[in-house]
Amino acid sequence: MTMQDARTPSGGSDATDGPRDTDRTDTGRTAVGQHKSYVVGSRPDLRVPVRTVHLTNGNDVTLYDTSGPYTDPSVDTDVRRGLAPLRENWIIARGDTAEYPGRPVRPEDDGLKHTSPRGGLRNLDAVFPGRPRLPRRGRTGEPVTQLAYARRGEITQEMEYVALRENVPSEIVRDEIAAGRAVLPANVNHPEIEPMIIGKRFLVKVNANIGNSAVTSSIEEEVEKMTWATRWGADTVMDLSTGRNIHTTREWVLRNSPVPIGTVPLYQALEKVDGRAEELSWDVYRDTVIEQAEQGVDYMTVHAGVLLRYVPLTARRKTGIVSRGGSIMAAWCLAHHQESFLYTHFEELCEILASYDVTFSLGDGLRPGSIADANDEAQFAELRTLGELNTIAKRHQVQTMIEGPGHVPMHKIKENIDLQQEICEEAPFYTLGPLTTDIAPAYDHITSGIGAAMIAWWGTAMLCYVTPKEHLGLPDRDDVKTGVITYKIAAHAADLAKGHEGAQTWDDALSDARFEFRWEDQFNLALDPDTARAFHDETLPAEPAKTAHFCSMCGPKFCSMKISHDIRRDHGTSLETEAELGMAAKSREFAAAGNRVYLPLTD
Amino acid sequence: MTMQDARTPSGGSDATDGPRDTDRTDTGRTAVGQHKSYVVGSRPDLRVPVRTVHLTNGNDVTLYDTSGPYTDPSVDTDVRRGLAPLRENWIIARGDTAEYPGRPVRPEDDGLKHTSPRGGLRNLDAVFPGRPRLPRRGRTGEPVTQLAYARRGEITQEMEYVALRENVPSEIVRDEIAAGRAVLPANVNHPEIEPMIIGKRFLVKVNANIGNSAVTSSIEEEVEKMTWATRWGADTVMDLSTGRNIHTTREWVLRNSPVPIGTVPLYQALEKVDGRAEELSWDVYRDTVIEQAEQGVDYMTVHAGVLLRYVPLTARRKTGIVSRGGSIMAAWCLAHHQESFLYTHFEELCEILASYDVTFSLGDGLRPGSIADANDEAQFAELRTLGELNTIAKRHQVQTMIEGPGHVPMHKIKENIDLQQEICEEAPFYTLGPLTTDIAPAYDHITSGIGAAMIAWWGTAMLCYVTPKEHLGLPDRDDVKTGVITYKIAAHAADLAKGHEGAQTWDDALSDARFEFRWEDQFNLALDPDTARAFHDETLPAEPAKTAHFCSMCGPKFCSMKISHDIRRDHGTSLETEAELGMAAKSREFAAAGNRVYLPLTD
Repeated sequence: MTMQDARTPSGGSDATDGPRDTDRTDTGRTAVGQHKSYVVGSRPDLRVPVRTVHLTNGNDVTLYDTSGPYTDPSVDTDVRRGLAPLRENWIIARGDTAEYPGRPVRPEDDGLKHTSPRGGLRNLDAVFPGRPRLPRRGRTGEPVTQLAYARRGEITQEMEYVALRENVPSEIVRDEIAAGRAVLPANVNHPEIEPMIIGKRFLVKVNANIGNSAVTSSIEEEVEKMTWATRWGADTVMDLSTGRNIHTTREWVLRNSPVPIGTVPLYQALEKVDGRAEELSWDVYRDTVIEQAEQGVDYMTVHAGVLLRYVPLTARRKTGIVSRGGSIMAAWCLAHHQESFLYTHFEELCEILASYDVTFSLGDGLRPGSIADANDEAQFAELRTLGELNTIAKRHQVQTMIEGPGHVPMHKIKENIDLQQEICEEAPFYTLGPLTTDIAPAYDHITSGIGAAMIAWWGTAMLCYVTPKEHLGLPDRDDVKTGVITYKIAAHAADLAKGHEGAQTWDDALSDARFEFRWEDQFNLALDPDTARAFHDETLPAEPAKTAHFCSMCGPKFCSMKISHDIRRDHGTSLETEAELGMAAKSREFAAAGNRVYLPLTD
Repeated sequence: MTMQDARTPSGGSDATDGPRDTDRTDTGRTAVGQHKSYVVGSRPDLRVPVRTVHLTNGNDVTLYDTSGPYTDPSVDTDVRRGLAPLRENWIIARGDTAEYPGRPVRPEDDGLKHTSPRGGLRNLDAVFPGRPRLPRRGRTGEPVTQLAYARRGEITQEMEYVALRENVPSEIVRDEIAAGRAVLPANVNHPEIEPMIIGKRFLVKVNANIGNSAVTSSIEEEVEKMTWATRWGADTVMDLSTGRNIHTTREWVLRNSPVPIGTVPLYQALEKVDGRAEELSWDVYRDTVIEQAEQGVDYMTVHAGVLLRYVPLTARRKTGIVSRGGSIMAAWCLAHHQESFLYTHFEELCEILASYDVTFSLGDGLRPGSIADANDEAQFAELRTLGELNTIAKRHQVQTMIEGPGHVPMHKIKENIDLQQEICEEAPFYTLGPLTTDIAPAYDHITSGIGAAMIAWWGTAMLCYVTPKEHLGLPDRDDVKTGVITYKIAAHAADLAKGHEGAQTWDDALSDARFEFRWEDQFNLALDPDTARAFHDETLPAEPAKTAHFCSMCGPKFCSMKISHDIRRDHGTSLETEAELGMAAKSREFAAAGNRVYLPLTD
């Protein structure tokens, strides 16, 4: 593999080459001292983006990059045209899919009455103005999933891409997918994505939810939230829109998204029956799944584990059913006194998903919504059913991950991941937090960031972020950023705790910069360079402070790092010698004491 | 015990009685629907404050209250006069202390040259304008510490106060103190405090650091930060001032603080020798400790575990020594090629602290400042020495807690608390975070809140907060609030995980309010009612939205809690019946399956 710069041909060669802003979406200014480059694989169109941070000491640090072409100054992005279909040739070359006319788009797909004019879309071009396209699906009845390919021993371009991105051999990617321990969500109708993988063997991933509701927000805002979320590190985005224009919003989001997009088709199905849960049917649901699969949705949350007989188990709960999909299906089951159509038609659903390579995200419709309800029988009964459904999905070669809670106190978290891994044969776990206390609305990114870090350390593959607005309102742009940053912290803390190869390189580079008073490097290496720089500059804005051997926190006399440097300057050689002698003596002491484990000499 | 209201005599009886703002310090508006009351103990002057939240369903929820008289509308506070000396009569009645002339205050105590005019204090009354007082200390050589009393089997007023506050029998408080598993920091010269306890048997506590540095901030700001921090729940406050006017700043903070105040005397000692570490001496240090003990400092961080022979162990660290005190003492040891005067004079120091009941906080001067340095030999060598010092301090009947790190990845956290508890005979652990990754400057309240919650779950008694400004600058008012709220979350999450009696009552009350759409109750019960209300009102400001059965997050059609209610309304009785049957059947099923632990039916 080789490295390619994303600098423009006319660009300079210094480290100040920043990406430019795009016309229509503000992807945020990337700090000076960084630029985008690519790791090139076995073919020229297999180029994996990385964020390269140029340090003032001449070293480079390479970081995982989810921001898509928006941060590449050599790419001319335009949200009205959409991103280039990166994977299209790979998909076509496999020869197992074909275009077809597809399902006609109807006004009710956007929540409009049959008689409504398209003007309801507020002058956006009908659905999407970009290149015309026909949907694609499996040519025969055979699944066209990454799971099917992996089981046949094939390493797809997507797998190679992911292997480069994760810095592991392609065989490991293939084997983890084949075993069902990882998923690579990549609908054949979403060729724009930069492939990524979700599995405990790999870096912990973060999902950001966006989506309008009937009360607020617009299509433009949702597209901007998506690019904004990926700018800060979201690995996937779920579009949970429930108001009007959801078909069109989703189309715009998909055509512009460099990351896999997830949805909950039930939300749109419910809109199609005017919000009356009891009028839902398999036909409406099936139609919606096909509609979304044709658009390119990469993974779908399906609450097929909410069975009629589990609903009574929630009767004495403190907070009942808190999943939207779960409560809708529970209401349907009770209204009809029948088993959930999602459960009874599950095999048919598998066949549909297999023909587009849509990944299942089996929803936890009965997840606990309060500390009091954590780990109760309703929750674990549903989990057992998700285990059965996981087995069925795998038989159909559909990639599958399992969703998890919710609100769980710290001492009950580990049971969740352990049970899920056992019952679902190590299928990737994808959890919402969990929130470790109920007492802090407006700070639930933090109550849940604690639980998220812990459950990811113990094996959860992807974390669904929670924003400060959880329980209170729809997140705005700032909330999205705060949610993503908080969850990147949780994910990275987990990568460190899991001993993920290379994870600590980032911490080490930043700590080196901190110790050596390379303030600019410390800012550029930060998860959020802008805020780190702004906080520093609040009290010491002048340029010389960027190389000063102190900050306003302690001032020059009390800077421990400055004193540490003075010590090394004045006593360096003798300290090194003493360190050698000291460590050797300590080793002998340790051995003499019977190598007692509570006093480790090294890690 | 009985309950007393803090309503003014003329006040109404409805739930809208809020405390008023004080004249000089903004302690924040307490939300409508709350007021302060007192639990009265065995004597009229033993009144323990609580925050009572009045719910719209007629119930009250009683919460621990750290905010002091500032939130009591019946108390006329004035920061120039200071708080009433609540404990004075208790201390005098014990008869084991006496007033004495005390050490004269000198210009250099405030970092001024001998010739400087007092004008350096910027027109604040010299030192403090409030009631004149003489310092007090043990009358004989016998210690006057809560530890000494507890060992003699006595239950002091302070212990009874704490028992009411924690809702446990007084004997437990006494026994935990006697065993050294808890400390009750209460200098005889700080009679203004509302006693509190730090120990793993009790609620997890939070400390907030304040303090000016040579670069920024003023006396008034520091006093305001102290009242602001306690307003949001800080249990103790450390004044880490290092610039000018530190004696005067401390006096103002102490006279107005309802919570114990901690300091690091070494900082002021260093100021007295113009910032030249090598000129420090036992005499200067001893003088400073007495100066601060006479003022009323309740606990002091002493870095007596940084021994000469440990300094070489830091030579190969990524970030050297990151504790200010640790680096100063390391520099002194190397400059003199002598053992630390804090170590060699430790017994004399114990005698001084015992005569004022100042609590030791044995500092971890060699704590890791980066993920790379966590749990290394330097850190654990110092911990072993802290264990020795703990034993010596206990022999002198000085209350003692032990400070802990720092920067530690999640998988290395538990070793820290386990080792500390073993080596230090279960003395309370008091940790700074730990930060679970280095990559997020500007978000280190979150990187550390994760580690703090975990280490508190495993037994840490008090958490030192970290603000968003950590590593970057001095925290302002907003940062102090964010830091305290984040750490209250961590502490409460730990209380839940430890199964602390009563902790979940708060979560349950809030979750009930949430499920029943009692929005005002949800706000009033929140850790931060103001922000919760503001976030909700951003999208649904109108008054009817405060009783609406949805919020802008999902809108009315998709509100899972609304649907849950509809389900209970329509199917309630049959669900209850089915729940009975279902649970009974599940119990049989469970028993038949051999009571396998991975599917618990109840918690």
